[in-house]
Amino acid sequence: MTDAASDSASDAGPHLRLQLHLAYDGTEFHGWAAQPGLRTVQGEIEAALARVLRLDRPPRITVAGRTDAGVHARAQVAHVDIPPAAWGHALGWRRGASRPDEAIGLLTRRLNGVLGPDVRLKSIGLAPEGFDARFSAIARRYCYRISDTPASRDPVERGHVLWHIRPLDVSKMHDAAARFLGEHDFAALCRPRPGASTVRRVLEASVHRVGCGGPEADGGRIEIWVEADAFCHSMVRSMAGALVAVGEGRRPVEWIDSVLASSERESAANVLAPHGLTLEAVKYPPPAALAATAQAHRAVRGPLH
Amino acid sequence: MTDAASDSASDAGPHLRLQLHLAYDGTEFHGWAAQPGLRTVQGEIEAALARVLRLDRPPRITVAGRTDAGVHARAQVAHVDIPPAAWGHALGWRRGASRPDEAIGLLTRRLNGVLGPDVRLKSIGLAPEGFDARFSAIARRYCYRISDTPASRDPVERGHVLWHIRPLDVSKMHDAAARFLGEHDFAALCRPRPGASTVRRVLEASVHRVGCGGPEADGGRIEIWVEADAFCHSMVRSMAGALVAVGEGRRPVEWIDSVLASSERESAANVLAPHGLTLEAVKYPPPAALAATAQAHRAVRGPLH
Repeated sequence: MTDAASDSASDAGPHLRLQLHLAYDGTEFHGWAAQPGLRTVQGEIEAALARVLRLDRPPRITVAGRTDAGVHARAQVAHVDIPPAAWGHALGWRRGASRPDEAIGLLTRRLNGVLGPDVRLKSIGLAPEGFDARFSAIARRYCYRISDTPASRDPVERGHVLWHIRPLDVSKMHDAAARFLGEHDFAALCRPRPGASTVRRVLEASVHRVGCGGPEADGGRIEIWVEADAFCHSMVRSMAGALVAVGEGRRPVEWIDSVLASSERESAANVLAPHGLTLEAVKYPPPAALAATAQAHRAVRGPLH
Repeated sequence: MTDAASDSASDAGPHLRLQLHLAYDGTEFHGWAAQPGLRTVQGEIEAALARVLRLDRPPRITVAGRTDAGVHARAQVAHVDIPPAAWGHALGWRRGASRPDEAIGLLTRRLNGVLGPDVRLKSIGLAPEGFDARFSAIARRYCYRISDTPASRDPVERGHVLWHIRPLDVSKMHDAAARFLGEHDFAALCRPRPGASTVRRVLEASVHRVGCGGPEADGGRIEIWVEADAFCHSMVRSMAGALVAVGEGRRPVEWIDSVLASSERESAANVLAPHGLTLEAVKYPPPAALAATAQAHRAVRGPLH
């Protein structure tokens, strides 16, 4: 039995685990994690579930990638365990909704009707056997977007692109990013948590200039794509900050190696502003491996995402 | 001498014509055109020019595509004529800015420093001989973006994508769009102006579903791309509305022909909400043809964009 299911163990019968795919604009949220008195993504969705399913208290949602205040998500994954009584209620909403997939369709529409436009449930499904949104995940993929020239500033996209004042050398940044690949201790690029490991495996780290919108030669904005098995706190934004230090010419490409070799927080790697960061994907193993992956991760990993 | 230049004919010497490339998020603007007491893109830029160049009164800007309230632009083009005295001032801003291109670089940075983040001057240049932002233009290109499924709703991009409640048949919309190609009288799809022609030549009209962000199979949003020599008032949004009527199955593909044959405003072609629309490009002929094109357009076209 999972942590979340045990929360409401007083309800009779097995809980139904739902898998949620969602997206949000982080601008008006104080991050993912529920905090008393603050508008958070978790808080909003838990409240919406309680309202739509008429639960006495909000169910607890477990998420794949906890995002900080101001960080966006385009493909966040979460799960929630619904007590059977509530589910029966959802099933019985109206005639014609007797099949689970129809009830789930209704649930999705009702939740989106209750939620603000800056968070959307893209789809809801019954979670496959052994699925845990957080512990079954094998990789998280983020993109940090930067506009470094006046010509590449797009006001329409200013909410999720950092406007950097100095031009950056993308080629050097890309070379520097390659040095992050593989397993390293990211202690110098994380806000530390006592007793928790800061070793992570980086699966992708690339920096490119991408054209945006129309045939105008606008120089394009910069996209930093990073995928890892997991990230510790503020790790992507610190990695991006280190790459900007290289892109500006303040540090050489090789400096990344010494940052990774250090266990001290590296001050030259600024934690970049949150609004440039978007969680773009969460990856899971094939269905047969979901339970074993979750078990293995639960055993070795601390309270990190 | 152009209209704009004649406005300030009292200043001695030839005016310098600047070509402006700019982008804006239309959300907080009452459209392009200056209106007393309202925040408009034209009003903001003219005020910024007056402030930065210390002019007694704002210079008048001429634009390629007048956009309505709430419509965005990613590659708008405009021109402005600067009196020689002001230009001398700009040139003399500081030592080292003695060449025109350096002065223009300073001007761009100063203007962006004064303007809000929802409008950006992407680049400024000396206009080539014979250039008129409005009358030299040979085509305007717009994109109307629609999300028609819960899975394709992206909160981060909700400011420039219409969320449509019903799923749309993109293949039918694309077939219908092809019927707009060529020269037609768009009287049924324009807000009419007395005495002004509503005949326009459509150079591109296509509808596609495009993937957005990450590997998730989100169905993708719909993009309607339309390019024409020029557009009359609310024409793109009415064309998009007609295509939505086809996409929903309320009208057959062939209905577009009868709309184009009619001179009455077609009520089934709703003018879609402005926030889904973005001006993506303005096209000009080769430099040698700029003056002749402007002259020809000035002779035949009314006060339309």
